[in-house]
Amino acid sequence: MDTFLLDTLLRNFLAEDLEHGDITTEAIFSPADRAKAVLVARHPMTVVGIETVAARVFRLLDPTVTCTGVVADGSRVETGTELLAIGGATRTLLRAERVALNLAQRLCGIATLTSAFADAVKHTKAKIVDTRKTTPGLRLLEKYAVRVSGGHNHRYSLSDGVLIKDNHIAACGSITEAVRRVRARVPHTINVEVETDTLVQVEECLACGVGVIMLDNMDLTTMRQAVELIGGRAIVEASGGVNLDTVRGIAETGVDIISVGALTHSARACDIGMDWRS
Amino acid sequence: MDTFLLDTLLRNFLAEDLEHGDITTEAIFSPADRAKAVLVARHPMTVVGIETVAARVFRLLDPTVTCTGVVADGSRVETGTELLAIGGATRTLLRAERVALNLAQRLCGIATLTSAFADAVKHTKAKIVDTRKTTPGLRLLEKYAVRVSGGHNHRYSLSDGVLIKDNHIAACGSITEAVRRVRARVPHTINVEVETDTLVQVEECLACGVGVIMLDNMDLTTMRQAVELIGGRAIVEASGGVNLDTVRGIAETGVDIISVGALTHSARACDIGMDWRS
Amino acid sequence: MDTFLLDTLLRNFLAEDLEHGDITTEAIFSPADRAKAVLVARHPMTVVGIETVAARVFRLLDPTVTCTGVVADGSRVETGTELLAIGGATRTLLRAERVALNLAQRLCGIATLTSAFADAVKHTKAKIVDTRKTTPGLRLLEKYAVRVSGGHNHRYSLSDGVLIKDNHIAACGSITEAVRRVRARVPHTINVEVETDTLVQVEECLACGVGVIMLDNMDLTTMRQAVELIGGRAIVEASGGVNLDTVRGIAETGVDIISVGALTHSARACDIGMDWRS
Amino acid sequence: MDTFLLDTLLRNFLAEDLEHGDITTEAIFSPADRAKAVLVARHPMTVVGIETVAARVFRLLDPTVTCTGVVADGSRVETGTELLAIGGATRTLLRAERVALNLAQRLCGIATLTSAFADAVKHTKAKIVDTRKTTPGLRLLEKYAVRVSGGHNHRYSLSDGVLIKDNHIAACGSITEAVRRVRARVPHTINVEVETDTLVQVEECLACGVGVIMLDNMDLTTMRQAVELIGGRAIVEASGGVNLDTVRGIAETGVDIISVGALTHSARACDIGMDWRS
Amino acid sequence: MDTFLLDTLLRNFLAEDLEHGDITTEAIFSPADRAKAVLVARHPMTVVGIETVAARVFRLLDPTVTCTGVVADGSRVETGTELLAIGGATRTLLRAERVALNLAQRLCGIATLTSAFADAVKHTKAKIVDTRKTTPGLRLLEKYAVRVSGGHNHRYSLSDGVLIKDNHIAACGSITEAVRRVRARVPHTINVEVETDTLVQVEECLACGVGVIMLDNMDLTTMRQAVELIGGRAIVEASGGVNLDTVRGIAETGVDIISVGALTHSARACDIGMDWRS
Amino acid sequence: MDTFLLDTLLRNFLAEDLEHGDITTEAIFSPADRAKAVLVARHPMTVVGIETVAARVFRLLDPTVTCTGVVADGSRVETGTELLAIGGATRTLLRAERVALNLAQRLCGIATLTSAFADAVKHTKAKIVDTRKTTPGLRLLEKYAVRVSGGHNHRYSLSDGVLIKDNHIAACGSITEAVRRVRARVPHTINVEVETDTLVQVEECLACGVGVIMLDNMDLTTMRQAVELIGGRAIVEASGGVNLDTVRGIAETGVDIISVGALTHSARACDIGMDWRS
Repeated sequence: MDTFLLDTLLRNFLAEDLEHGDITTEAIFSPADRAKAVLVARHPMTVVGIETVAARVFRLLDPTVTCTGVVADGSRVETGTELLAIGGATRTLLRAERVALNLAQRLCGIATLTSAFADAVKHTKAKIVDTRKTTPGLRLLEKYAVRVSGGHNHRYSLSDGVLIKDNHIAACGSITEAVRRVRARVPHTINVEVETDTLVQVEECLACGVGVIMLDNMDLTTMRQAVELIGGRAIVEASGGVNLDTVRGIAETGVDIISVGALTHSARACDIGMDWRS
Repeated sequence: MDTFLLDTLLRNFLAEDLEHGDITTEAIFSPADRAKAVLVARHPMTVVGIETVAARVFRLLDPTVTCTGVVADGSRVETGTELLAIGGATRTLLRAERVALNLAQRLCGIATLTSAFADAVKHTKAKIVDTRKTTPGLRLLEKYAVRVSGGHNHRYSLSDGVLIKDNHIAACGSITEAVRRVRARVPHTINVEVETDTLVQVEECLACGVGVIMLDNMDLTTMRQAVELIGGRAIVEASGGVNLDTVRGIAETGVDIISVGALTHSARACDIGMDWRS
Repeated sequence: MDTFLLDTLLRNFLAEDLEHGDITTEAIFSPADRAKAVLVARHPMTVVGIETVAARVFRLLDPTVTCTGVVADGSRVETGTELLAIGGATRTLLRAERVALNLAQRLCGIATLTSAFADAVKHTKAKIVDTRKTTPGLRLLEKYAVRVSGGHNHRYSLSDGVLIKDNHIAACGSITEAVRRVRARVPHTINVEVETDTLVQVEECLACGVGVIMLDNMDLTTMRQAVELIGGRAIVEASGGVNLDTVRGIAETGVDIISVGALTHSARACDIGMDWRS
Repeated sequence: MDTFLLDTLLRNFLAEDLEHGDITTEAIFSPADRAKAVLVARHPMTVVGIETVAARVFRLLDPTVTCTGVVADGSRVETGTELLAIGGATRTLLRAERVALNLAQRLCGIATLTSAFADAVKHTKAKIVDTRKTTPGLRLLEKYAVRVSGGHNHRYSLSDGVLIKDNHIAACGSITEAVRRVRARVPHTINVEVETDTLVQVEECLACGVGVIMLDNMDLTTMRQAVELIGGRAIVEASGGVNLDTVRGIAETGVDIISVGALTHSARACDIGMDWRS
Repeated sequence: MDTFLLDTLLRNFLAEDLEHGDITTEAIFSPADRAKAVLVARHPMTVVGIETVAARVFRLLDPTVTCTGVVADGSRVETGTELLAIGGATRTLLRAERVALNLAQRLCGIATLTSAFADAVKHTKAKIVDTRKTTPGLRLLEKYAVRVSGGHNHRYSLSDGVLIKDNHIAACGSITEAVRRVRARVPHTINVEVETDTLVQVEECLACGVGVIMLDNMDLTTMRQAVELIGGRAIVEASGGVNLDTVRGIAETGVDIISVGALTHSARACDIGMDWRS
Repeated sequence: MDTFLLDTLLRNFLAEDLEHGDITTEAIFSPADRAKAVLVARHPMTVVGIETVAARVFRLLDPTVTCTGVVADGSRVETGTELLAIGGATRTLLRAERVALNLAQRLCGIATLTSAFADAVKHTKAKIVDTRKTTPGLRLLEKYAVRVSGGHNHRYSLSDGVLIKDNHIAACGSITEAVRRVRARVPHTINVEVETDTLVQVEECLACGVGVIMLDNMDLTTMRQAVELIGGRAIVEASGGVNLDTVRGIAETGVDIISVGALTHSARACDIGMDWRS
């Protein structure tokens, strides 16, 4: 994750919570007061964003804070694991606490859900990928969380990938024409993907050499037929309302990629506490 | 919700998803192509942010888009309810769709959960309030969603309210001293709130005329005793791991306010579809 | 004062004075030239913003500048007092001088006027507070200057306090209704304040349990009656055209708070010189 | 004054006062409520920034507000003059009021002081000019106020004019060398100005063809001698602690330009009221 | 080209040239003065950015300006062709002129060079593509100019395409390992490209199924062998110091793509005049 | 060149090329990988922007990078000269390379062309100056490149110099009236320049004491007559389609200044390589 871009985000998040200052803390603590605290996992989780995000929040506010973490992004930890030791000005610890925790809890939530999906498809060739159904303003962070906890990324934005959907096809009259128009415009470094609902559409995709074929909301039987039909001539992505109950069955059809919007739009925040040490 | 501030956020969210442009759509549609679509509730929900947020996203990208909505923020709707009719340039509809939906689904999720908590305490005097456990960058929107769907807002940020917590108290030696320091610094327009764990602390709060007393993670019996002890001399807030199973019991202790972090950190996104019309 | 927010302001102020660069200084001095200078009080004053603001301006432009100050914010100093010793690149000293002085002189002006008001009400219980009549863009700094030189702060902005004025009351039909609507919307951490012109209005405020009652432009007799009527059941604020001649009389009526717009809109800049040392 | 740049400033000023919204007004008024108000001069003053700044503040927040003003910038008005009629959403009028007034009052204060200085030198050839001792962040506005009320502008920033001061001269060894270095670097469209303390320095300036000679803190006799010595070969600027008592005498020495820091650093805000109309 | 992003760029460019305002024009023209002008091609050129960029610059400064253009982006025009008729406030026309022309001349320069390269490879299957050797800050505009004048785009930035270069390969030990690491990290929507210097490297690329093979600085004979070796199993890109003299020969080797840094780093600005009309 | 302003530009340029990150490099290198490289001149050139710009790009992305350069801005170097040695994280070197080179190559191109023009007028009194025909967004850098390689700068923007052109004159009725209006508005630190086409206009300029007279597109005979007519009473600038073939003849007419738009709008980028060292 590029820290050059990350810091701008984190500064905005700090500004949102600080507005014109932490009036409680400023009244009670002097700049010279010092404190220590530890971030602790309150339940088993896959950890992301402790050193890479939470520690960075503290340091952005005050470069003299020391943060010591030993848990690499993507690790699975047990209840009670100490994730980060923080020491420095009490004012800083209090002012940054909420932003650091809000971010870490959300990212660990996504990571924990992603690991569960990755576990569910273990020993198949399917990869779990995210979607653009991320929290507005947090895509950089959320896609990172997916990527380091057993998942993979789909395109980042509207500009780094092509996904030709039903509206696009309808407007062009055929998949063939849509693909032609897109190829005439987009870099050759982009792998064109087309959304299909039927085997007939899959065949049209193959005929025009599409790189990725998305099977959208197909039942398992049709999906299996599609995989067979494609026979390795394109990357195959399954998509549509995937959950932990259905994902294994989908993986076993032989698809390459399963995209799961729930990774980012429905993950529950993990519980991480900030315990103060004397 | 102040639209002056909102538009800056929405522009950033659009920029995140657009990066250098929607390469698929630009290849396929001309600026002259026109389309119509409808946002539809896929299940029963409390609606927030359709006209106030989603429609605004479309218009920010292109002021000539028309958005017609009839569902006021805070309304409860059934499956299939049409929430917003949108018409305009096909390019605009496709470029704004994901950002508009990502926001609307999240806000409706918060609103739906907030209504459930509000229902659960009906006919008690307790108000459900949010916390600062909001999604970084989305506080303006999320606190609005809570406020219009049956909940109320706690302080917005570190600068518009005082909450004296255990660390603050420890640093000062007593609640009395902490309150004295805070009153010497903060505007008289701020109502000082203190977090308490015991009835002894509650008594110290009363002795120094604190405006709001938070009962943090107390059991129901102690909570009831605290309410009685306070006897209307301060606003009483219950806090700590509240959920839909426990909230009614807490409300019946007679507290004025119940703060629920889950409203914003654990709401699940609602399912809202964008159906294209011919 | 939160330095996180301050630096953004200071950078903008430097950019305003630098535009595309200091063409005189760049032509004459090399980056290697070094100089020393001292900020000196040209008359007796209450000092604010020397280490906290002026020194910060120099360091923002060039972190290698050394600034040594011994005068704490809020101190009163005599003519000729050396406030800050600065050493570093001549280019930096010359480029930052005007911005640093413009700020320091203005803040010391506010602090000096605030101390005079604070002195005038000594041994009464009245506190002097500022208003929102600050210089656009400088509120963070000006409210800090008031706060550390014997004054206190009223609400910071339209979002961290409630002040119900005559227009609001007229629109609602009564103080009671205005207070009801506000309480239904704003956090319980906000202390509702109402502006009153008559004792009848004061009574209505008391009846609905308002936290702060502003007595707006009342004569001293009415003010005294109001204070008596309120009898400690609310914080009492006197407001309206207060000056150094009238403030003592007002304080002696027994009000808790006297708000003085002149602190920020009519303070005269102090004279602080930057003397170069060889 | 360039409106392209002005609007960015005004938006920041509005954001400073709004933070996350006007909580009082939002609770009490609906978006549909309408109101009218008038800005009124509470004493005689030279008016600047009513239509050009205050009206713009209201419209930036809400383009549907109507503002009707008939008083041109630079006009002198009597007590009670109606400066601007405003009509529109009550919410907008209340949210923008403070920012609009804070700016208008300050600019009228500068304009009123500038007119007084301009009056004091009437029928001499001297022009009154401002300095860089402006309020940080308001230079664009304050220099405009000077310019349209009988004064003129000195250089705007460090980058659009050259002023060689004692430090620059000391570093170069002589005025001649300082001027040489500057001419080698700065555009030929810049008129080089040198600060002098003695007639000897004035002569050195003449010898190297300097365009503007500043007479810094000279007594009237020396100033008169300097003017005679220069004999029209350069523009002559008098500078240093000029006030309304001394300015006429300085003008009568025959200088071309008198620079007055007080125009911007010591002007008192005018009193302008916003009266609500039914 | 996405106008949402474009406007931010154009505003910055206007601010660069305006700084605190156009002092000549403001002195001479009143806001009410009106003028008309025409942009005219001073020599034959391929036109880009007249309606899409230059007209937009005028309108951003002043939405009441009218701009009428009839020449579509990508058209080839003769000397003297009128490209855009502009009417509105004289102040606006003068303030925007330089920025509008600077941009239009540069973009037409790129378009004209791109057309020349496209002409040179006519009737071969080779496409001319740009590189990341664009002017810092102008990539959005320059890549658009290439795309609409007969060229195509290579990846936009470091984040929307993969190009594995010699350093990457050296660090991994082999192309195979580099490709493996990249595939494990990047979206499946990205087509992996590898830079090769030898036929052995080309073979390794084929073995690991690379989507695009770049032939870097190969002589024509080797290039022809490489094309034959690849035999349609990957897209083939020729790269390295291509110019108008060499491009045809390269195209005739049978490569699919020829990338030309000169399109953006060495195009000469076209001459477009702004003729005032009475 | 003011580094305070420069860094904002450079950050934007890095953001343009990075978007959401360098996906190739992040996949292949760990943060701990280290590398060394050298910037090398591929042909003889005048060097600008190596230490002052390119090195700064690397350090902005990562302050731990070491950059060692020995070639001062404005130096002329031979083919193969090593311009900058860079060492640090491989990720940083790869991510910053393109932006650093794009800038350095362009600035060296301008410097090399400027030196050629300066050489061409050697031993005349004419100075070569740039124009406002710079690349949008790069003016700060490009004017610096001109200034340190044998050229000089004309005004920076519309706000730091006055140039009265034919439109301005036509609108006022005469040069005399245009100059009068401008003098009444602009600071006395600005040297008024007027564009002339005829000797009659030159005479009118002299009559009203204009500081700089531009001879626009005059033939050499007329130019010589104009220089004689002016006789040192104003700075004389020649302008209009100057190139390396014509510049010497123009200089020999005795003009003081020759402005050359081509310096910035038609310079070709130099070729600078980044060679990796083991």
